[in-house]
Amino acid sequence: MQPITYDTASAEVRAVFDDIKATRKVADVNNFWKHLAHDPRMLRHVWESLKEMMGPGALDPLTKELIYVAVSVTNGCEYCMASHTAGARQKGASEEMIREVYAVTGLANMTNRLANAYKVPVDEAFK
Amino acid sequence: MQPITYDTASAEVRAVFDDIKATRKVADVNNFWKHLAHDPRMLRHVWESLKEMMGPGALDPLTKELIYVAVSVTNGCEYCMASHTAGARQKGASEEMIREVYAVTGLANMTNRLANAYKVPVDEAFK
Amino acid sequence: MQPITYDTASAEVRAVFDDIKATRKVADVNNFWKHLAHDPRMLRHVWESLKEMMGPGALDPLTKELIYVAVSVTNGCEYCMASHTAGARQKGASEEMIREVYAVTGLANMTNRLANAYKVPVDEAFK
Amino acid sequence: MQPITYDTASAEVRAVFDDIKATRKVADVNNFWKHLAHDPRMLRHVWESLKEMMGPGALDPLTKELIYVAVSVTNGCEYCMASHTAGARQKGASEEMIREVYAVTGLANMTNRLANAYKVPVDEAFK
Amino acid sequence: MQPITYDTASAEVRAVFDDIKATRKVADVNNFWKHLAHDPRMLRHVWESLKEMMGPGALDPLTKELIYVAVSVTNGCEYCMASHTAGARQKGASEEMIREVYAVTGLANMTNRLANAYKVPVDEAFK
Amino acid sequence: MQPITYDTASAEVRAVFDDIKATRKVADVNNFWKHLAHDPRMLRHVWESLKEMMGPGALDPLTKELIYVAVSVTNGCEYCMASHTAGARQKGASEEMIREVYAVTGLANMTNRLANAYKVPVDEAFK
Repeated sequence: MQPITYDTASAEVRAVFDDIKATRKVADVNNFWKHLAHDPRMLRHVWESLKEMMGPGALDPLTKELIYVAVSVTNGCEYCMASHTAGARQKGASEEMIREVYAVTGLANMTNRLANAYKVPVDEAFK
Repeated sequence: MQPITYDTASAEVRAVFDDIKATRKVADVNNFWKHLAHDPRMLRHVWESLKEMMGPGALDPLTKELIYVAVSVTNGCEYCMASHTAGARQKGASEEMIREVYAVTGLANMTNRLANAYKVPVDEAFK
Repeated sequence: MQPITYDTASAEVRAVFDDIKATRKVADVNNFWKHLAHDPRMLRHVWESLKEMMGPGALDPLTKELIYVAVSVTNGCEYCMASHTAGARQKGASEEMIREVYAVTGLANMTNRLANAYKVPVDEAFK
Repeated sequence: MQPITYDTASAEVRAVFDDIKATRKVADVNNFWKHLAHDPRMLRHVWESLKEMMGPGALDPLTKELIYVAVSVTNGCEYCMASHTAGARQKGASEEMIREVYAVTGLANMTNRLANAYKVPVDEAFK
Repeated sequence: MQPITYDTASAEVRAVFDDIKATRKVADVNNFWKHLAHDPRMLRHVWESLKEMMGPGALDPLTKELIYVAVSVTNGCEYCMASHTAGARQKGASEEMIREVYAVTGLANMTNRLANAYKVPVDEAFK
Repeated sequence: MQPITYDTASAEVRAVFDDIKATRKVADVNNFWKHLAHDPRMLRHVWESLKEMMGPGALDPLTKELIYVAVSVTNGCEYCMASHTAGARQKGASEEMIREVYAVTGLANMTNRLANAYKVPVDEAFK
């Protein structure tokens, strides 16, 4: 499917694009939104969720981007790795921080399977 | 398989258990290590990797625990969710921080699939 | 590995190719079968399973294709997304239907992780 | 974490619970919502997304529930399998329909990996 | 759903149960087959596929069981881990062999994510 | 990120590269190591783990490579499929052996989901 650009977008889609651009202070939305715009309802729901949850909260926005990278690497989503690694860099992540995300993600994927394999029971102290 | 406790452990395993206890300042190792001890070589490799990578670095140890939680939730590893959520709390995570990890993990798993589905091409700006 | 075309196929593989073409009323089999033909036993087992299970039954063939798309998107299998989305269109799926499959798949991947994270116990009413 | 019941819920959470009960014509919300209520923002976002996307559209609500089951089985989410299988039955799914969802989900998970393994290139006709 | 036992099975299901018992030289089929029997067509397809593919071939049956364990651990399928680990032991696997399967599975899950994260291009020599 | 070649590597990275080359009797390390070298600590940990665990043990090195292929196919890691299939061929795997790995991996991914779907309880005999 072709991406939906601002020029070709419906008023409903444009309103979301405008909000993304204003919120993120960017000149244009990235490809994810231009493709998701084929489904204006999901475009709105996903944007409203990300807008509220990815901003400052109990966790800072950079930490949230790093978590996004870790999940995307686990799932092998190439687009998401690229966009959220870029997002993390923009929010101040150093190359070393990104590499540590990769390292922890790799280790967690290993120990998740070892815990499965050995059927490790949850410690009383963790309950 | 039964867990291997300190009393029944070989000298090789005890050495790793001792190092875990000393490094983490805990009275006993948790169940993961007692089960992984059935494979003394992996016990050593996993511990040495975690010891070096999960400590302070470009990212602080709490952020690393939160990433571990996100990956474990993605993979559905119950033991790992329990142990790393406990680890995060011990390192100072509030309940609100943990809930934001859950939220971001859920959102990332959704948008990872939407990016797959729409075959979104990576933006030039992300390359 | 190179695909196995009808001309180069063994009699055993040709028999399956012939059955696929006759069943689906197509001039040629698609790439999946030409590659799987390297393993004539699996070619036969997979074809016989799909032939029986993907046809009309308690669910209509279109619904089955949509389920196939949802699983393939979840697993990030690019070939399978492409072939089963094409199959769904051929069986009458509109673009809106396909986009709703994508939306539901995304939402399910999110709530699956939220259910994991919050360790939600199964309601009595669901047992 | 303990579930949040209507009695103990904040006004913000109660408003969502009320909307779920009114929309679904049920006496109480199920456990998923009572646990997700620990994060009122996600409670609202997830509910608003599901409310709009899981209702009638290009696909009927039953087909959407079946897709939800297929994704949940693929990810091994026990709670989600239970709740969406119950949802599908309530919307009219027969046991045979549910078993066909299981069958197609199993087959798709197999052929997804065979397509990966043989690196099958996407057919021109599917592009 | 309740398992379908030999006594309550249809003739079609009994024929498959008889073949499993004769092929594997066992007194009764295991729970997997008793549950899958709710779908007699899949029961037959899955059994015929496993019967042909899990027996001696280019790989010996024990190696195939070990691969089954590795996949099941990766996917976190508790039943499948239990049944195929038992199958491997029955075919002669030592505890050390099983632990090495676990180790390799853990390592592969780690390096799979590191290869994703670093977007490692395939070496010319591997093409 | 650009790969780190021997010429541009630090002494710490070179030491690992030298050990890989000596252990595997190869003229150069493959791309995985050249990229992972951006994180010298993980480079060392991953190499030390693989060096010890992938060599001869209770399982022979070829069987271990085949297990690696099965996990990589399950996870859809293209690089890992390519490198470990090449590794398996180099250790003597025939094309038929590799195809049987693919077949078993596909079947396991199917039956893993069927076991999930039917919530099959673990047989007493497997405990």
